[in-house]
Amino acid sequence: MLSTALVGAGFIGPVHLEALRRLGRRVTGVLGSSPEKSVIAAAKFGLPRGYANFQEILDDPTVGVVHLTSPNRAHAEQCRLALRAGKHVLCEKPLAMTSSESMELLALQGTTPRLAAVCYNVRFYPLCQEVRARIASGELGEIHHVTGSYVQDWLLHDTDFNWRVLAEEGGQLRAVADIGTHWLDLVQHLTGSDVTDVCADLKTVLPIRQRPKGSVETFSAKLPGVKPPTEPVAIHTEDYGSILLHFSTGARGAFTVSQVNAGRKNCLRFEIAGSKGSLAWDSERPNELWIGHRDRPNELLLRDPALMKSAARCVADYPGGHNEGFPDTFKQLFRGVYQAIDERLSELPPGIPSFADGHRELLLCEAIAQSHLERRWVTVPLAA
Amino acid sequence: MLSTALVGAGFIGPVHLEALRRLGRRVTGVLGSSPEKSVIAAAKFGLPRGYANFQEILDDPTVGVVHLTSPNRAHAEQCRLALRAGKHVLCEKPLAMTSSESMELLALQGTTPRLAAVCYNVRFYPLCQEVRARIASGELGEIHHVTGSYVQDWLLHDTDFNWRVLAEEGGQLRAVADIGTHWLDLVQHLTGSDVTDVCADLKTVLPIRQRPKGSVETFSAKLPGVKPPTEPVAIHTEDYGSILLHFSTGARGAFTVSQVNAGRKNCLRFEIAGSKGSLAWDSERPNELWIGHRDRPNELLLRDPALMKSAARCVADYPGGHNEGFPDTFKQLFRGVYQAIDERLSELPPGIPSFADGHRELLLCEAIAQSHLERRWVTVPLAA
Amino acid sequence: MLSTALVGAGFIGPVHLEALRRLGRRVTGVLGSSPEKSVIAAAKFGLPRGYANFQEILDDPTVGVVHLTSPNRAHAEQCRLALRAGKHVLCEKPLAMTSSESMELLALQGTTPRLAAVCYNVRFYPLCQEVRARIASGELGEIHHVTGSYVQDWLLHDTDFNWRVLAEEGGQLRAVADIGTHWLDLVQHLTGSDVTDVCADLKTVLPIRQRPKGSVETFSAKLPGVKPPTEPVAIHTEDYGSILLHFSTGARGAFTVSQVNAGRKNCLRFEIAGSKGSLAWDSERPNELWIGHRDRPNELLLRDPALMKSAARCVADYPGGHNEGFPDTFKQLFRGVYQAIDERLSELPPGIPSFADGHRELLLCEAIAQSHLERRWVTVPLAA
Amino acid sequence: MLSTALVGAGFIGPVHLEALRRLGRRVTGVLGSSPEKSVIAAAKFGLPRGYANFQEILDDPTVGVVHLTSPNRAHAEQCRLALRAGKHVLCEKPLAMTSSESMELLALQGTTPRLAAVCYNVRFYPLCQEVRARIASGELGEIHHVTGSYVQDWLLHDTDFNWRVLAEEGGQLRAVADIGTHWLDLVQHLTGSDVTDVCADLKTVLPIRQRPKGSVETFSAKLPGVKPPTEPVAIHTEDYGSILLHFSTGARGAFTVSQVNAGRKNCLRFEIAGSKGSLAWDSERPNELWIGHRDRPNELLLRDPALMKSAARCVADYPGGHNEGFPDTFKQLFRGVYQAIDERLSELPPGIPSFADGHRELLLCEAIAQSHLERRWVTVPLAA
Repeated sequence: MLSTALVGAGFIGPVHLEALRRLGRRVTGVLGSSPEKSVIAAAKFGLPRGYANFQEILDDPTVGVVHLTSPNRAHAEQCRLALRAGKHVLCEKPLAMTSSESMELLALQGTTPRLAAVCYNVRFYPLCQEVRARIASGELGEIHHVTGSYVQDWLLHDTDFNWRVLAEEGGQLRAVADIGTHWLDLVQHLTGSDVTDVCADLKTVLPIRQRPKGSVETFSAKLPGVKPPTEPVAIHTEDYGSILLHFSTGARGAFTVSQVNAGRKNCLRFEIAGSKGSLAWDSERPNELWIGHRDRPNELLLRDPALMKSAARCVADYPGGHNEGFPDTFKQLFRGVYQAIDERLSELPPGIPSFADGHRELLLCEAIAQSHLERRWVTVPLAA
Repeated sequence: MLSTALVGAGFIGPVHLEALRRLGRRVTGVLGSSPEKSVIAAAKFGLPRGYANFQEILDDPTVGVVHLTSPNRAHAEQCRLALRAGKHVLCEKPLAMTSSESMELLALQGTTPRLAAVCYNVRFYPLCQEVRARIASGELGEIHHVTGSYVQDWLLHDTDFNWRVLAEEGGQLRAVADIGTHWLDLVQHLTGSDVTDVCADLKTVLPIRQRPKGSVETFSAKLPGVKPPTEPVAIHTEDYGSILLHFSTGARGAFTVSQVNAGRKNCLRFEIAGSKGSLAWDSERPNELWIGHRDRPNELLLRDPALMKSAARCVADYPGGHNEGFPDTFKQLFRGVYQAIDERLSELPPGIPSFADGHRELLLCEAIAQSHLERRWVTVPLAA
Repeated sequence: MLSTALVGAGFIGPVHLEALRRLGRRVTGVLGSSPEKSVIAAAKFGLPRGYANFQEILDDPTVGVVHLTSPNRAHAEQCRLALRAGKHVLCEKPLAMTSSESMELLALQGTTPRLAAVCYNVRFYPLCQEVRARIASGELGEIHHVTGSYVQDWLLHDTDFNWRVLAEEGGQLRAVADIGTHWLDLVQHLTGSDVTDVCADLKTVLPIRQRPKGSVETFSAKLPGVKPPTEPVAIHTEDYGSILLHFSTGARGAFTVSQVNAGRKNCLRFEIAGSKGSLAWDSERPNELWIGHRDRPNELLLRDPALMKSAARCVADYPGGHNEGFPDTFKQLFRGVYQAIDERLSELPPGIPSFADGHRELLLCEAIAQSHLERRWVTVPLAA
Repeated sequence: MLSTALVGAGFIGPVHLEALRRLGRRVTGVLGSSPEKSVIAAAKFGLPRGYANFQEILDDPTVGVVHLTSPNRAHAEQCRLALRAGKHVLCEKPLAMTSSESMELLALQGTTPRLAAVCYNVRFYPLCQEVRARIASGELGEIHHVTGSYVQDWLLHDTDFNWRVLAEEGGQLRAVADIGTHWLDLVQHLTGSDVTDVCADLKTVLPIRQRPKGSVETFSAKLPGVKPPTEPVAIHTEDYGSILLHFSTGARGAFTVSQVNAGRKNCLRFEIAGSKGSLAWDSERPNELWIGHRDRPNELLLRDPALMKSAARCVADYPGGHNEGFPDTFKQLFRGVYQAIDERLSELPPGIPSFADGHRELLLCEAIAQSHLERRWVTVPLAA
């Protein structure tokens, strides 16, 4: 069994660690944002080693797989180095800061025998897999339209701050890139259809935010406690966006992202309407799937392996009524990736998000940014 | 007390009649689509008289108020004649087929001492009035974005047919005009802010429908029973639309309309996100208002006069937990109009939808149609 | 068409009036708690006449039907007088204060050619009729158990006062009699099965309440405004009760009533579990029916005539998604009664609550009271 | 760090294993129902060792903690042996088959320096901890009544079979003991109040079930596949029960258990009504807490550490909107126990379910069984 090293000790790093442990994987150590932080994180997480720098991971012969949960701007370089060092890679989204970077990574990955995945974990909610299986089986008929939103409130106040709000740290786009890409990846995964054209309207609702002198972990700003001194900083990334969509199958769509929507904590919703039925899901009630019918009562499917299609049942570990949630999606995603690694497959099985999916995200984001700037429809370039 | 004549005996005519009766108003009679149908309708509804034609209503000196629930293309002419004959008018939406017609009506109405309202009944759900009062009081702070949808499924199948699907009967736009305008009127009413710019994407999902040889009443197609023979007819009105919005206050928005969304029967949803909180409402659960907070638990207000603001309490006739619904909105709308009539006011009180609101609807629809055709943002002309 | 007189001008009187008007019935006038109040109520309601006393109604030859919405203790005597005067009667529940009174009334009614109904309006929610039709058709199989509750909060504070809390005004039981009997009537109506044995545990949670010097209308206590001076009064009626049930079919059950359950405004819930499926309903979301399945997804039926059984469709006036509520149930109940009156039927059609049902309520209440006092199971006497 | 051995490889064994791994605990091996099954389970779970018998665990000096997820009737003896061998014990519920057994265990445990917990995992849903903290802080005022249910459908059909339905395997009571005890433990934990008196009505809805020739894992019967041949067997354990409750504080209550309630997969609901507010929770939507108010809008608290009391925040690992579920409750329970073990505490901290709680469960079950048999109220003996 190959061992794994973890890069990043912020919000999502421990999520990876816990999922790896549930699967019984060995984790060699963790790399934080400094050698000192690595040591502290290793102790806190109960890991054998705090790496002093990324090179130590590359040089560690016991490490077969690297998980990247570092800040966005580090992803591309770390992916490149890890692949070149012969490690398998699981990279948090986004894969890179630009589509030229992600295209390079995609090309590089094609030349190595290693597997490389991007962590679109939302796909792995069992009922999302159920949606995908139902659509693939034709139960919805032709897809007419796909609508929804991904909304949060953790950046509602101007005193809410995180590296992600800074274009230079997180990228040109923020709400679209951080959460909108989850939505876009998900609905394309579910429908098996690509977004071909976008028309976007974005807004930086809070053009000035108060930056604390220290750094702030994602989602931690809301916790009670003493607030540090701050300084105003101009923000150029969007808090809000709504985007019209055309799909390759002719389907239409629209969705909204916002990080200033009071009361919505982490709420990804979609509704997919087809000629034979509709499906709706809400990440804040992830164990329920609404199934809309025209000529008979609607259905409400509670996540239950006994009632789900086989493709979805295999990512549902617990019986009906025994809720699974956010941490379980990482377990299921990783299980799929590590199964392919253990079986020495030459590529990821269908359905597991690959660097091609990661590259596609960048193309979509760039088309969205352009559409907003030019106030017009923009065609998304083909990934090839 | 002035008496009322009812024009139209289809789906919405009896809704008006029932609401008038709840208020204790006298109704003189009804006009159907032919003298024979008028007589049949009068008998069925228990009304004294079936009018042979519209002129008989104009000539009836006992009639002080005319309710127009005739097909859309008859509205403008009937409004004109009724106002000229000195009758007060309550016209179903849309007020006219074009904005030049509606502008003329608006001008005409300004020259008469009669009151003229358009039936945007959704405003009169008590919790919608609560939303308006809360926003007016500043509870939501600055409005950031307004999103939502109005979706139905009664036109999902190509065998679903109604005069509304034909551009020549219902107008150039259909889903947008029939239900989208309710949404647009509502959110402008609630926020006290005008939509200034639109960017629309529409689609006729079913470009051919099967027309039965006879006519079909709205919503009746779904009822079980023998289906008549049909013939194919090309459809040029949209089944689906998604529209990006800019508001006069700087707020952003987006909404979707669809009449082919399986499982949604008559589902108008909005979510209004402001700097201090959010509000969400669903017409399929009209007695519940979701109130989103960032720093304390969200709230779920059950319609309850004891817990509502005074402006909303006065349209809530029943105590908390005693649900009110669709028919009650007409009662509340009419109560407001007739109170103004009885008190011989020279104009409608604020909040009651006027011909100006009806004219605004036409301007919005024309901008939406143009935006879709030209695939670009369009500025909505000022009503003046 | 026979005309109707209304007795009572409190909370429920106007509800009756509005429903009568929706049906196009003539209402001659109203009797309040004094001649002066009658005149005031007649003016307020727009009725021709305020009766000085009950005898005036009995003597009014234009009155064919009497609606009794007077305080509970007046019901039996007014029923008796009205029937003897040859009037049809619709009596609010409870029919009487004791089962010997209600048995007498039942016997008297059997000797007259007049119809006599008791206002168990909850039966007439369209989805309750759907439940009844589904159970009658065998869709649920054998009924295993029936559980639920009827809970409110309008008597939560010791300053909440109403004549109903006084045993001498409302009767020995309160929460059970006022709302529990609605639940009991409903589930027996839905399942077609009688409650045969009860085991009850009741509690007066607030043994002392503050009585205002004036009288207080039902549900009005919660409205804002100046509060009158009060005096403490000992309360002997129950705020809470839970009751175990055996049904004639062998089914088991249990339900809870409370008028001190904060946040529940008027919340009647039931869940009926059978060998083939389950049904659950909540009066605070009356347009939704949950249908539980073991081997396929659960269903959520939105009230929609197109999707309902014929017995339920005929009490659903509005299309799917156009919510109906509490006031509509009175319309549907009265429609059934007046149809029987107009057709000069010799007895009420099945399903319309009769004096036999009203008598049964008293037998149930007396068994519940005895069970609580003696802390043991009690068999409910047969109605005969 | 002490290592752990796992006894039992059925439904709940792997749940324990996964939770232990999330916490970074070492697990030495597993004991199945035979030496062969132990080896198979060890391989399947990726554990070093399959124990041949329980004695091997007792003799394994590397084992410091034993988790018992064996069939109910083995619990008492295994607890006794493990404690005597100097191991810490986490025992699945029930602790024993009779209260005399559990009393002995409780006494024995008092004489050892080892910690011993019973797995009432439901307590550890973060919002359940929130309920406990809110009640402890007085936010609900005086508790008036506690109602609810725990219902499932996995034993709806007579072909549903599991060792739990047999009194000799699972104990005299089944639905009450298996799931009802979770409910009873939970509400006593939440309210800090003991159930003192019970009045129960139980029913074996399916008195004959079809037993397959092989054994059947809990919850697995519903999965699709070939069904084995069966033989009829008489069932003496209850499928359904409803129970009236008195609490030591004077509060009243009632709850229902059923394992034949179609559509409810694993649905534990409670509603706690106090003088200042109410709280309601449903295990099928475990990340939502309904907070009922009389004089202001109700609240709906989404599990969010930033919005929760500190006692609850410490068992909520993920930010708001990132759902946690059933598996997370075991992680939180075990974290508390192992923290006490690691810190060599002499007893479990308050709130962690102890052998005293496990003993109390047996006393309650015996009182419930007696109450049902004798059709009367029964006082629950004090645990001492």
